[in-house]
Amino acid sequence: MSGIDLAVTAVDGRARTGILATPRGDVRTPVFMPVGTAGTVKAMYPDQVHALGSDIILGNTYHLMLRPGAERVAALGGLHVFVNWPWPILTDSGGFQVMSLAALRKIDEDGVTFRSHLDGSVHRLTPERSLEIQALLDSDIHMQLDECVALPAERAEVERSMRLSLRWAERSKQAFAGTEGRALFGIVQGGDQHDLRVVSAGGLAAIGFDGYAIGGLAVGEPQEVMLAILDTTVPALPAARPRYLMGVGQPDDIVEAVRRGVDMFDCVLPTRAGRHGVAYTRFGRLNMKNARHADDPRPLDEAAGWPPARDYSRAYLHHLVKSGESLGGMLLSWNNLAYYQHLMAGLRAAISARQLDDFVARAKEGWAGGDLPEL
Amino acid sequence: MSGIDLAVTAVDGRARTGILATPRGDVRTPVFMPVGTAGTVKAMYPDQVHALGSDIILGNTYHLMLRPGAERVAALGGLHVFVNWPWPILTDSGGFQVMSLAALRKIDEDGVTFRSHLDGSVHRLTPERSLEIQALLDSDIHMQLDECVALPAERAEVERSMRLSLRWAERSKQAFAGTEGRALFGIVQGGDQHDLRVVSAGGLAAIGFDGYAIGGLAVGEPQEVMLAILDTTVPALPAARPRYLMGVGQPDDIVEAVRRGVDMFDCVLPTRAGRHGVAYTRFGRLNMKNARHADDPRPLDEAAGWPPARDYSRAYLHHLVKSGESLGGMLLSWNNLAYYQHLMAGLRAAISARQLDDFVARAKEGWAGGDLPEL
Repeated sequence: MSGIDLAVTAVDGRARTGILATPRGDVRTPVFMPVGTAGTVKAMYPDQVHALGSDIILGNTYHLMLRPGAERVAALGGLHVFVNWPWPILTDSGGFQVMSLAALRKIDEDGVTFRSHLDGSVHRLTPERSLEIQALLDSDIHMQLDECVALPAERAEVERSMRLSLRWAERSKQAFAGTEGRALFGIVQGGDQHDLRVVSAGGLAAIGFDGYAIGGLAVGEPQEVMLAILDTTVPALPAARPRYLMGVGQPDDIVEAVRRGVDMFDCVLPTRAGRHGVAYTRFGRLNMKNARHADDPRPLDEAAGWPPARDYSRAYLHHLVKSGESLGGMLLSWNNLAYYQHLMAGLRAAISARQLDDFVARAKEGWAGGDLPEL
Repeated sequence: MSGIDLAVTAVDGRARTGILATPRGDVRTPVFMPVGTAGTVKAMYPDQVHALGSDIILGNTYHLMLRPGAERVAALGGLHVFVNWPWPILTDSGGFQVMSLAALRKIDEDGVTFRSHLDGSVHRLTPERSLEIQALLDSDIHMQLDECVALPAERAEVERSMRLSLRWAERSKQAFAGTEGRALFGIVQGGDQHDLRVVSAGGLAAIGFDGYAIGGLAVGEPQEVMLAILDTTVPALPAARPRYLMGVGQPDDIVEAVRRGVDMFDCVLPTRAGRHGVAYTRFGRLNMKNARHADDPRPLDEAAGWPPARDYSRAYLHHLVKSGESLGGMLLSWNNLAYYQHLMAGLRAAISARQLDDFVARAKEGWAGGDLPEL
């Protein structure tokens, strides 16, 4: 029995909207999942994240296995209890952070050995251990361990890595067998090679997963490369199952991927950008460090429905960011997540109304139009 | 016309409770004023600070004059608008931070010249300029510029400084004359010299202020020295006017000062300690970095009425603090301010019920009893 079930309620072109039912609650798709890296969506209270319309968050297996440790989280009642988030959680496999953060990593057929970036201690992840950790964390959606190559890369290297990920997918399916009430997603690899992506998608579909992620994108390639890969990959995936584009992305990336049939997204951008003084608005990205905001009494966007965009002046946000005050990151992270979830709600409504093209055109017009005129 | 009016509603021994009416709202006394150093009570949303029962916050003239600048705040509508806090605000004179933070400070009869700790730029504060800045900020209660000597100090130095502060008090009163709807407080100095404190208090009372602060305490002296100075100083102040003990303090300091007739307090401790991993509870101060919390599923205090003490495990708080996650400082600052305001509400209710001694005895018993037994 799969732990999740996708009910598509409307389609518009290749885009679709629906409900992903999980034992811990329904997830409205297309969905943006805020990233709760080390057990916290940074600079946000959990109930605040939920109130913005976040039906599900992501937890990073790599961070949590190193600190506080998966066995400890399990003894404390699991990740939901630990982080005070009773709603659905997806955990990644840990593989991506091993590649990007850990020192002295060494991949072999069986798994990957690496040193913690925190204290240099040696750890090992295999497909089986990754799922064991995710079971200890008790997340609702588990991801298979995969290998992700940075682009550009040689075709032979991309193919080797994709085939390794496919063998790990098979082992993950076997290790997961018998798990009740939880879901397992396979991950399509194949870099920028269209035929390899189709091979990977077909291989995963043959194994059979509760959902399918598309990995190895948004790793430095131009947007048109990513979108072309989506054009090839999405149709090769089982239509009845959710499709998840990992680590994406900018609002424009999300909109274009939704158009191509993607259901799920995660990205650190809204919270990371918020901590670095960047605000996402319907006018595009605003750098609040910019001196032009220093004397501006206007809010970020008086038409927005969320307090950080409405109740604080740009001058104050500029002051907070320049002064390194934590409230700056708190307000901008809140604004950015609110903007992202507002965008997702708009996409869902537009698909339901079969007006996605109009919605996207208006959103892009707003981003391209630039900010309010200077005072 | 004074901008404020104190109505004492009950007394218990020398302690008193009442309402300090200001044009921007009533302040329940004894009151603890959270410190909004640079225009933000660190790691807290303003409406959250207010919801904890904070009727008034403090703003630091030194920080705000340097960044974003008093004239800029005035052009943006004043400090209340700038920081999104429509309720009362007290501003200090800037003098204390000049002494503790600025470089190359030089005091003369007329004022103090110093270099900004931010960029080395040269600034000057006089009694008149401090009040001009506070008028630009448009705070509700202004403080006179004073000089504060660190203890221990020679009597001659304490007396010289006290008499300078008294002359600055006279100039402050003249500069403030004609201001409508705002209040000006004088500041008693005199270090640990009881007779000098009485001279200072008498001198200020002769000038006539809307309220009287006791400065130059909690600067390193033992608690019994501070309390003895309060025993001498408070009776020398006009009973109809509020008494404010600046920069104090630990919960035990506040309780003892309330017993001696003090009405107002401010301190960075609850928020600063929160950012450094320390929780204030009815069991006393808990260092959440301590490894004994790492596996403890219990909340800080399940009997507390505020979410950070009730809805998150000690293990999670420990994890957040150890990981340097901003949510750790957010939750502990919130808890600590909630605890402080809960304590103040308890003190007010106890005075009203003429049961202050019982209340204080129970509070001290809690702090002395130590934490919950280890698991």
